[in-house]
Order: sequence, then C-alpha cells, then structure tokens
Amino acid sequence: MVLIASVTVSDRASAGVYEDRSGPAIAAWLATAVCSDYAHVSRIVPDGADSVAAALAELSDEAGADLILVTGGTGPSLRDETPEALFSVIDKELPGFGELMRAVSLNEVPTAILSRQTAGIRGRTLIVLLPGRPTAIKTCLDAVFPAIPYCLDLIGAGRIETREDIVASFRPKGG
Amino acid sequence: MVLIASVTVSDRASAGVYEDRSGPAIAAWLATAVCSDYAHVSRIVPDGADSVAAALAELSDEAGADLILVTGGTGPSLRDETPEALFSVIDKELPGFGELMRAVSLNEVPTAILSRQTAGIRGRTLIVLLPGRPTAIKTCLDAVFPAIPYCLDLIGAGRIETREDIVASFRPKGG
Amino acid sequence: MVLIASVTVSDRASAGVYEDRSGPAIAAWLATAVCSDYAHVSRIVPDGADSVAAALAELSDEAGADLILVTGGTGPSLRDETPEALFSVIDKELPGFGELMRAVSLNEVPTAILSRQTAGIRGRTLIVLLPGRPTAIKTCLDAVFPAIPYCLDLIGAGRIETREDIVASFRPKGG
Repeated sequence: MVLIASVTVSDRASAGVYEDRSGPAIAAWLATAVCSDYAHVSRIVPDGADSVAAALAELSDEAGADLILVTGGTGPSLRDETPEALFSVIDKELPGFGELMRAVSLNEVPTAILSRQTAGIRGRTLIVLLPGRPTAIKTCLDAVFPAIPYCLDLIGAGRIETREDIVASFRPKGG
Repeated sequence: MVLIASVTVSDRASAGVYEDRSGPAIAAWLATAVCSDYAHVSRIVPDGADSVAAALAELSDEAGADLILVTGGTGPSLRDETPEALFSVIDKELPGFGELMRAVSLNEVPTAILSRQTAGIRGRTLIVLLPGRPTAIKTCLDAVFPAIPYCLDLIGAGRIETREDIVASFRPKGG
Repeated sequence: MVLIASVTVSDRASAGVYEDRSGPAIAAWLATAVCSDYAHVSRIVPDGADSVAAALAELSDEAGADLILVTGGTGPSLRDETPEALFSVIDKELPGFGELMRAVSLNEVPTAILSRQTAGIRGRTLIVLLPGRPTAIKTCLDAVFPAIPYCLDLIGAGRIETREDIVASFRPKGG
C-alpha cells in the first residue's frame, strides 16, 4: 500500500493554540486527485531544523512513506528552518520543484520569491516542501503533482494513479 | 532609522581608474521608489570573496544595515566572487530572487543565464546581489523590490514604504 | 583550435548493450550551429559520480576542452549521479542554465521538473549538463547556446562563432 504523509510545521499548531488547516488541506487535495489506493498519515511538529528532520527521517525510514508533503517553515523568518531540515536528510535535491512552485505563486503574490520551497529524495521517499497557506498549497500541488507519480516510479517507490481531469500526470512511454 | 547600503564591487572603480555608475544608479532608484525615511550609505570595494564578505559583515553587524544592495561580481569570470562572499556570510539563501532577476533579464539579453545573482539573510539584514550595469540594475530592482518590504518585516528589520505608482509592494493581510 | 567534448553517461551504452544516440545528437547539433573551426571529442562513461567526475577532470585539465556537453544521469534515480560529479569538479555553478533548460522542457513534459540539469565552470572550461533524450537535447541546446560563446570569452576559453539563422548568440558591446 502506498503511504503518503503530510507534515505540518508550526509552533502554534503543534502547541494546540492554533488549529491546523494546512494538513487537512493537503488531505482534501489528495482525496480529490489521487484515484489509486493509498494510506495517509499526518504529523504536526514545531518549527526548527531538528524537529522537522526527525519527523522526515522517521516517516521515510520507519514508516516507509513513499511521498511526504510538508507545509510551513519555508519563509525567511528566524524560525523558518524547514529547508535546512530537508537538506540534512536528503540524498538529492530536485530544484525544479521550487522553481515551478515559486513561478506559479508569483502569479498570485510578488512575495512568492521569499519562499525557499524545494524537494528532495531520501532513499525511496520523495519529500516536497509546500507553502503554509491552504490556498497556496493547492496552487503548488496543482503545478507539481503531474510529475510526482513518475518520480516515485523512478526512485522505486509505490505506484500512484491520478484522476486525469484533476491532475494530468505524465509517464513517458506509457510507463 | 532604516539603513540601506549599496556596495559596488569593482577592481577598477575601487582603484579610482573608473567612475562608479552602479552605486549612484541604485541610489537614484531608491530615491524615486522609497517614500519612507531611510539613510543610505555606499561602499566601493575591489572584487574578491574576502573584500566583499568583509564589507557585507561590517555593514550588517556594525552599521546595522536593514538592506544591502550589491552590484557587480556575479558573472562567471575568474574575478567574479561576489556570490562566494555572500554564501560565506548568510544564514539562509533566498533562491527566488535570482530566479526572478534572471527571468526578467532574459527578456533583454540571452546572456542573463550567466548571472549568479541571488539573495540571502544575515541576522536582521537582507542582502541582494544585483547585476553590474545600471540599466540591468533598474530591471532587477523593479522586479524584486515589491517583495522586499515584507521580507524586512519578517526578519525583524526596519519598515520601508514604497511609492505605489513606482513599486507595488505587497504585505499579506495588510501587515 | 577550440575543443568541444561530449560525454554520454550511461551504464548500458558504456557496456555496449545499447547504442549511444545522445552523443551523436550533440555532434549533429554542433555541426549545424557552430560555424567557426572546432575539434570534437566524445566519451561514453558508466553512470556514477566517480566515473563522470574523472571524465570531466580529464577533458578539462588534460585535453584542454573549452566546452563539455554532458548527456544523461541528471534524473532522480539511484544511479543518476551526474550532478554530484559536476559539483565535485567545478569552481562555480551557473544556476541559470538549469532554470532555463527546465523552463523550456516544461513546455514539452511536466516531468521536466525532475531534472537536475545545471552548468558550471572548471578553470577555462564550461561544463553543461544536458538531458538524456536526443529530442530534449536539441530543445535545451537551442535555449542555452546563445549564451555560451560569450561565457567562453569571459572565462578565457576559445572563441566560438555560431550561424545566426540557427543560434542567435549574443556578445555585449560587439565583443
């Protein structure tokens, strides 16, 4: 069974003083777009490179997640350390994810260039850093998800199928 | 009082054999676009990672600059070491600045892809690497400045207001 | 005499179980687009950071190549280590090459964001990582080659002239 994890990075949501709306937004998007079977787990962790890195390593190595979607902590603020966490656990960075997410977000807000979103591979797990706001999450998932099923094929992760009318996923050569 | 610094990186301008036109171009752009109070200091330093890094650290740590705009030294030539200087002094890189500056410059010259422009955060200072030529400086400032006031807010630097008819700065939630 | 090298990175082509079509595609593109004199050498090496790094260093340091065009090994798969090889031998990365190659490839396939293509400088050699498929090679060379002759000028490599009707190379100030 394919396992997709979402990780909400937020001091306030983690402390329970703020309701997490970003994790549920990811779950709702997946429920609409992915038509093959998958299990979904979610985590809420405080900001900080160590807490995020620990969650990513556990979900990849112990839980065996095929895909981890992270929301929050990619800005320029002092507590925004999600990219540093990613860099400390991945084997390879895939800079095209960040370039495309910033490009599509730039059509909505000029501050999109402040985002340090990116993606990377750890073993057989693809990890993608999404923005924090629910509407921006949808914009970014719509943009990059067409490339995700084939990426999972290439790294030996599980197979995902998407609803063609929602996300036009692409596999070269009918793979 | 908000402090904005400009740093011209050039062996020839630093030696006085060549008049610096890039620093004054930045000063003129700021005078037109920024309508809140600010002080402006300028430096001219020779090429080289050490000289540029020293200037950036001094302006950030001693002078307390909120924003440092650097011009020159971002090309592929042997003496172009401004990005190496930046990488040695920043806490976080903001790759969206370089992506956008190259994208808008690419509309003017195909050699825009040779530029290693980028931006980064050191403490409460935002540092942006601009191109060397005055006309290219304007192109790049027009493109990225709308995101700069909110970035300064996020890192705890001073507040800047811009003239809306010149630069449509954006602060989410009316911040 | 300007020396342009092509390096095909492929376990199967290197073992002779698969005919290399990518190296010849590069050679054919060059023959059409470059109108000044140049020599061309080609190599086929297996995947892996060490084998690719050794080929790049030898072609730059021993053979004195002005330009090295590499095809293959830039994807997210386990054996795709061409970017790691590049990072281990270059003095400076030029991220604009990868950004532009992914942007133009994205017009053809959404999986373009999976590519880790980029470029870098080693001494007086420019090294560009191209995609593996021949049609994608042409798309990327068409996009980035206009900036290559001027880049070679800047790093002290040999002078290349291109056919203006094929590749509109650009040299500022008529350089």
